[in-house]
Amino acid sequence: MSNVNEIVVRYLEVWNERDAEKRRDLVSKTWTEDGGYFDRVREGVGYDRIDAMIAAAQEKFPGYRLNLASGIEAHHDYVRFSWVAGGTAEAPLYIKGTDVAVVASDGRLSLVIGFTDAAPAPVTKQ
Amino acid sequence: MSNVNEIVVRYLEVWNERDAEKRRDLVSKTWTEDGGYFDRVREGVGYDRIDAMIAAAQEKFPGYRLNLASGIEAHHDYVRFSWVAGGTAEAPLYIKGTDVAVVASDGRLSLVIGFTDAAPAPVTKQ
Repeated sequence: MSNVNEIVVRYLEVWNERDAEKRRDLVSKTWTEDGGYFDRVREGVGYDRIDAMIAAAQEKFPGYRLNLASGIEAHHDYVRFSWVAGGTAEAPLYIKGTDVAVVASDGRLSLVIGFTDAAPAPVTKQ
Repeated sequence: MSNVNEIVVRYLEVWNERDAEKRRDLVSKTWTEDGGYFDRVREGVGYDRIDAMIAAAQEKFPGYRLNLASGIEAHHDYVRFSWVAGGTAEAPLYIKGTDVAVVASDGRLSLVIGFTDAAPAPVTKQ
C-alpha cells in the first residue's frame, strides 16, 4: 500500500475496529514493526503496545467512532489530518483531534503524533 | 535551553531575523546540527541549508513577520503551534501555518514539519 489516503483511512479504521483479531491485523497493516503512537495521555510502540493502547481507549469510550474531518495534507514523508468523534446521543462527548504521521517507505506509518483540537466542555453541577 | 515555550519563540524569531549573521546564529541555537525543516514547498537539513532556505523565503516575502497564533501544545518530545503572517498593508497576503516539531534532549529542534492552514485567496482580474 503506497497511497497515503488509503493508509489514513485504514488508520482510523484501526481505532474503530472492536473485533480483537481484526484490530490486531489492522495494526500490523497500518504501522511498521517498530512504529509508535504518542498523544498527551497515551503512547504505544510496537504492535502489542499499540493494540493494547487502542483496546483501552475503546473500553474507555464505548460507542465512539473516529471520522475523518479534514483533507489529508501530505508532503515529503509526512501527513496531517483531523478527525472527530462523539457528539451523538450514544457517544455524547465531542472530541476532535489532529494527527501528524511519518510515512515509511513501504507506505505504513512509523510514527503517529496525536494532538487535541477540541475536548468536552467541563460539566458543571447545578 | 530546555523550555519548549522559549524554543518556539526563538524558532519564530529565526524566520523574522533579516540580519544574516544574527539569523545564522539563531539557526544554530534553534536546530540541532543535523536538524531539518520540511514544508510543502521548501526543505532544508543542516545549518547551511536551513539558513539559505529562510533567507530565500525572506527575499520572497519582504516585510512579512511570523507571529505566534496559538497556544504551544507539547507532549513527549513533540510540540505543535500555529503562526500567522501578513494581512497588513505592508504585507498584504495573509498566511497561516501550523508547525509540528521534534524537540531533542538538549531542547533544540531536530525536525520541524510545516503545514499550511490558510493561503491567500486567488487573485481574479476584473
